[in-house]
Amino acid sequence: MLRTHRAGDLREDHIGQDVTLTGWIGRRRDHGGVAFLDLRDASGVAQVVVREEDAHHLRHEFVLKVTGKVERRPEGNENPALPTGDIEVIASEVEVLNPAAPLPFQLDEHSEVGEEARLRYRYLDMRRAETSYALRLRSKVNQAAREVLLNEDFVEIETPTLTRSTPEGARDFLVPARLAPGSWYALPQSPQLFKQLLMVGGMERYFQLARCYRDEDFRADRQPEFTQLDVEMSFADQEDVIALAEKVLVNVWKQIGYDIETPIKRLTYRDSMARYGSDKPDLRFDLEITEMTEYFQNTPFRVFQAPYVGAIVMKGGASQPRRTLDAWQEFAKQRGAKGLAYVLFQEDGSLGGPVAKNLSDDEKAGLAEKVGASAGDCVFFAAGDAKSSRALLGAVRNEIGDRLGLINPDEFAFVWVVDAPMFEPAGDAEAAGDVAVGHGEWTAVHHAFTSPKPEFLDTFDTDPGSALSYGYDIVCNGNEIGGGSIRIHQADVQQRVFKLMGIGEEEAQEKFGFLLEAFKFGAPPHGGIAFGWDRIVSILAKTDSIRDVIAFPKTGNGYDPLTAAPAPITPQQRKEAGVDFKPEKKAKDKDSAKAEQASDTAK
Amino acid sequence: MLRTHRAGDLREDHIGQDVTLTGWIGRRRDHGGVAFLDLRDASGVAQVVVREEDAHHLRHEFVLKVTGKVERRPEGNENPALPTGDIEVIASEVEVLNPAAPLPFQLDEHSEVGEEARLRYRYLDMRRAETSYALRLRSKVNQAAREVLLNEDFVEIETPTLTRSTPEGARDFLVPARLAPGSWYALPQSPQLFKQLLMVGGMERYFQLARCYRDEDFRADRQPEFTQLDVEMSFADQEDVIALAEKVLVNVWKQIGYDIETPIKRLTYRDSMARYGSDKPDLRFDLEITEMTEYFQNTPFRVFQAPYVGAIVMKGGASQPRRTLDAWQEFAKQRGAKGLAYVLFQEDGSLGGPVAKNLSDDEKAGLAEKVGASAGDCVFFAAGDAKSSRALLGAVRNEIGDRLGLINPDEFAFVWVVDAPMFEPAGDAEAAGDVAVGHGEWTAVHHAFTSPKPEFLDTFDTDPGSALSYGYDIVCNGNEIGGGSIRIHQADVQQRVFKLMGIGEEEAQEKFGFLLEAFKFGAPPHGGIAFGWDRIVSILAKTDSIRDVIAFPKTGNGYDPLTAAPAPITPQQRKEAGVDFKPEKKAKDKDSAKAEQASDTAK
Repeated sequence: MLRTHRAGDLREDHIGQDVTLTGWIGRRRDHGGVAFLDLRDASGVAQVVVREEDAHHLRHEFVLKVTGKVERRPEGNENPALPTGDIEVIASEVEVLNPAAPLPFQLDEHSEVGEEARLRYRYLDMRRAETSYALRLRSKVNQAAREVLLNEDFVEIETPTLTRSTPEGARDFLVPARLAPGSWYALPQSPQLFKQLLMVGGMERYFQLARCYRDEDFRADRQPEFTQLDVEMSFADQEDVIALAEKVLVNVWKQIGYDIETPIKRLTYRDSMARYGSDKPDLRFDLEITEMTEYFQNTPFRVFQAPYVGAIVMKGGASQPRRTLDAWQEFAKQRGAKGLAYVLFQEDGSLGGPVAKNLSDDEKAGLAEKVGASAGDCVFFAAGDAKSSRALLGAVRNEIGDRLGLINPDEFAFVWVVDAPMFEPAGDAEAAGDVAVGHGEWTAVHHAFTSPKPEFLDTFDTDPGSALSYGYDIVCNGNEIGGGSIRIHQADVQQRVFKLMGIGEEEAQEKFGFLLEAFKFGAPPHGGIAFGWDRIVSILAKTDSIRDVIAFPKTGNGYDPLTAAPAPITPQQRKEAGVDFKPEKKAKDKDSAKAEQASDTAK
Repeated sequence: MLRTHRAGDLREDHIGQDVTLTGWIGRRRDHGGVAFLDLRDASGVAQVVVREEDAHHLRHEFVLKVTGKVERRPEGNENPALPTGDIEVIASEVEVLNPAAPLPFQLDEHSEVGEEARLRYRYLDMRRAETSYALRLRSKVNQAAREVLLNEDFVEIETPTLTRSTPEGARDFLVPARLAPGSWYALPQSPQLFKQLLMVGGMERYFQLARCYRDEDFRADRQPEFTQLDVEMSFADQEDVIALAEKVLVNVWKQIGYDIETPIKRLTYRDSMARYGSDKPDLRFDLEITEMTEYFQNTPFRVFQAPYVGAIVMKGGASQPRRTLDAWQEFAKQRGAKGLAYVLFQEDGSLGGPVAKNLSDDEKAGLAEKVGASAGDCVFFAAGDAKSSRALLGAVRNEIGDRLGLINPDEFAFVWVVDAPMFEPAGDAEAAGDVAVGHGEWTAVHHAFTSPKPEFLDTFDTDPGSALSYGYDIVCNGNEIGGGSIRIHQADVQQRVFKLMGIGEEEAQEKFGFLLEAFKFGAPPHGGIAFGWDRIVSILAKTDSIRDVIAFPKTGNGYDPLTAAPAPITPQQRKEAGVDFKPEKKAKDKDSAKAEQASDTAK
């Protein structure tokens, strides 16, 4: 090594020793004929004292090799905030290993730097303590997860990334196959099918920190490539997967010194939607939705004559000025609602707001008690179909949490959301921005490989709306940080699910034939989970975005400001890739031409 | 869990206990009204005894759940070859969790199965002990490497795989970017540029088990996607990287109970080529090439009047029949040589073979001593330019090693090949099947980012043929299992290398501009290594091919017989991917049209 010691490791014990350090110049102060340089390496910072005449050409972020003697700092000059604050290195020799041009932004004033610049110069942004910490934490967290899994006899297995298109709710990225012109690989949205095949193969316990790919339209804080901790186990039921997942989470959160209490609480999907208006409720605060449908069953107010009415209380909300209440209407409209009905419980006991006068006297009289409001509070209502009304109240709930400061940023609130429905109407999935897999009226809430609970095994395809699955999500602070299920392991059940989802037999054979075939040869019962690794690390590091915990992230539209990828390719590359390959048309009938084309993939 | 115990864990201690096992039916023997089933799970096998009437429908590879009592096997029926050989489980209840159709091949007779069938039904192949062992070993080996690296403060960092095309000796796989039509991502051939940027970013010590991609024409035992253990460190010299790499290798080989002696021996590239005719010599046997150029400097034999003559001895080779000696000619011709000259040292002291009569008496007299041959030996010669002659003798050397059984299959012979030349003529690289990067007469032997040794810093671009680099390869049993270098960290040196390789300033800016720019802001000296992980695991598991240590490998031409990838895409997918995007041509001059197209990538 070019150095004898790491800068951040120097302590009183080293006083009197000759050391050689390497690193970057951080702060610099000139005083009394000498320059005081903060020399920074991965371990930390040490103060280096250089004679002014040796220092005049040294600038910020120069890379130095410094030889000198460790000395005690003069009394009064100690810096107790720094682990090396008792010592300094009196330089006898200073070599510039590499100079540095003036930086496009200062490393210690990150808040002023736009994200585009941070990503364009990611290698400078990485020298900032926050980014460096996040990436180093990520490495520790990887290991913490592996430690648990390896202890439990899980096997780390890599699955292919040049593979076959298997629709899972988003578009695939595609890769032309030069050696089979006209054919394409797809980058996997997840290793789902492969991990199930590993179970058929008797590997029994698999995990992988897997790179996955989704070609989605712009969504806040998504990346076209992302990482999930992917886990699958055989001969396991839901309790086994949940218990294992909790062990992983406990060891992961331990890396930031936080003890997760286990068992983690659970909510059924139905309860979660009813009480919190979301399948990923933020339980750092208690606020719940009150269902008012029955309460308003005979209401004279037309708006509340609806299949569902729900209410949520905002403590102290009665004193919101008119324009704030108007802004709530805007908030609701942006979420596709017509508006947001509200009643203000005035300090004098009267009810304010435009809705109040439409309610019957009985309704007004019992309202405070029913919703749990006191004088000074505001209650918001949503009425209409249950699903969208609850979603609106769920959004209002989070907004109230923010505005009233109900959220302790140092707390982590975990919850399992279990008993997910097997199916939802395809229209709902599309409305939520997912690609509905299949062409049927119904699509899978988790995915097509999720097992029904045994009590719905016979009826899930005749009464799909009521069927519950062994699908479970783990939620932290309102983020879905993982999800999984017990899988279908029987070919006939899998085929019934495909059929219901409108994936015809031929299509199923073409796309999933190999899975259906594998199920014929002794597939064990199995299930698993996948954790959103970028999100988990982002929560642990308390960063605003998953981009902050990815070494070289892309912007929202998939652009990398550092390398300027994606980029045009040359005509030569295009030609070689076989993108424009046209199968030769010989004097044959259409069918045999088709067959020929198909066989290109199987050469 | 559906079971109380794992089958392979049962021992005498369990006798008398009621257990529930799950697993697959292996062998079955029927005898005396009962069926003896080998029940197999990931832990091993236990014998289960089932009443015949409960067993008649049970077939190979059915998945069972068996409840029963552990009993001692009747005396004489123990199987000492099996860890569970003292006990058996008397089944009281047998549940078929999943039946199995008759298999396409038997799991215990693997040698009869073609590879295409093994890959098509990889999930069955995986139930075989060999494949299962290889995949489980791989997981252990991953962890062994990480253990060393994490102990040495290395940080595990993921680098992007949707990135920019950076030619490195093979073609890139390309991915159309739907959100920037006309632009493409490239899948990385290695994380080379990113790991160097991590060093510029002050991460100091990085590693990753990185998925890499090369779109190569068919080559034996290559895969379009492969894995390397990628390592980079700052403020390190060649000795540091080598010492670290040896620690990794020691801990990896320990997983199969093999102790690597360190320090591992070293050869210079020049010596390796001169003595073994290869930059990846198999040192499990000692046989060396003797250079004869000077010996034959005044030879009357026209063929040996060449810039280089070399010889290699085959012990006992004089007794090879004529057709075997003819086959050697064929061997040489297949490697692009005209033939393979030889002299036979007959037992009577005379020299046989067609070459002998062309040699002078002096040459004949001194030959045995010069090449170290005895009566009964054969000596092969190659004459011509040094490079191709040595390559031929290197191939002959390996063939002799095989034929004479000089290779101990249980030995592992490691060697570092150091002091690699910086450059080779571009024609040589192309002849070896690599894509020469750049358009110059010279191309890099390692890659364009490899640092010259200090003594060649001033002259490498004026006398490229003589410049040595800090490039090093680690070789095991004749396989290059890793390679690395100390990198260039100065922008001006990097630019001089690009220039020599015929990468113009504009091209360098376009392709590597971000790296050159990064070097302006304080790049530390750094270097690293990448290990061919598939190859290493294959050597450890003693498999014939890297395909045996990859869960779902592809055939030589990139085809996956299991999923039938790659496959045609739909017109809809093609349209969405933006593959056929044509930038709109407006009534503008050419330049602004160009600028528009370019800006599509930067939206």
